[in-house]
Amino acid sequence: MALVLGIDPGSRKTGFGIVSVSKGKPTYVTSGVIRLPVDQPLAPRLAVLFENLNALIDEYSPEQAAIEEVFMARSAGAALKLGQARGAAMVACVSRNMVVHEYSARAIKQAVVGTGAATKEQVQHMVKTLLNLPGEPAEDAADGLAAALCHAHSQQGLSALASGAMRRGRLQSSHL
Amino acid sequence: MALVLGIDPGSRKTGFGIVSVSKGKPTYVTSGVIRLPVDQPLAPRLAVLFENLNALIDEYSPEQAAIEEVFMARSAGAALKLGQARGAAMVACVSRNMVVHEYSARAIKQAVVGTGAATKEQVQHMVKTLLNLPGEPAEDAADGLAAALCHAHSQQGLSALASGAMRRGRLQSSHL
Repeated sequence: MALVLGIDPGSRKTGFGIVSVSKGKPTYVTSGVIRLPVDQPLAPRLAVLFENLNALIDEYSPEQAAIEEVFMARSAGAALKLGQARGAAMVACVSRNMVVHEYSARAIKQAVVGTGAATKEQVQHMVKTLLNLPGEPAEDAADGLAAALCHAHSQQGLSALASGAMRRGRLQSSHL
Repeated sequence: MALVLGIDPGSRKTGFGIVSVSKGKPTYVTSGVIRLPVDQPLAPRLAVLFENLNALIDEYSPEQAAIEEVFMARSAGAALKLGQARGAAMVACVSRNMVVHEYSARAIKQAVVGTGAATKEQVQHMVKTLLNLPGEPAEDAADGLAAALCHAHSQQGLSALASGAMRRGRLQSSHL
């Protein structure tokens, strides 16, 4: 069984999710959102992200991390802020000897929903469906779980996640 | 005596410099450039930055860090890369319980050269002069030292660095 930590870094909120993968099947372990204290200077703000991720890694010992690759940002200012959060998140993982994998948003959506053009809502819905969650996770947590699922899918030779779930009719039943 | 670590983060090269401040006078301790392995994926690249800074902090135990604030970047792509390096550098400091201070490029130039519009060459030259160095430090190392000098200046109530040096005629003699 391998644990995969997925991270959706942001300068205000960073979503995370851990899934375990056993016999080609992903299982939910935990997920959540780390809220950065935006009223504080940058260094203590990034410290909150770094320390919370370190504590999470120490608690669950995931071996691999998956993080969304960023190609475009709204502006140079937004890119700088996102980059700082990404850098802090990545070194939190490598400081715990984890291997960090990057996936494009398109690849993550493709792996989880079956189309690279999926909406945020579709990602949330399919994450809930694929992991048999009782409710939809918060958007940032869902994005973290989606990154973890994408990595699990690409590394473990899982059968296509989205199409498998649809074949089993879970996409429909989860609406009930 | 307080040690100040100045950092000039970059996605390819990160300059650093440590100065000690005693009785209002800054003294050179060390400086250098951390070169990131640009042929490697982002995570191991940032790991080199994080680990080298941690090793530096462990060796010299500076209490305070000074880092250049970034307002503008050439492009969103450049801003993202710079942000990632900045984030990694900042958490390297906060993970060692250092306090990190940010200064605008203008404030650093003002403190070191006496004008916020100083050129890179003027900064290099004044860093050499103020710290009585035998030669000019590399550009990135000079920028790290300049950030440290700026913090020393603002925190320790040093007499204006640049004007003091000029009064003592060191600006002229260092040309000899």
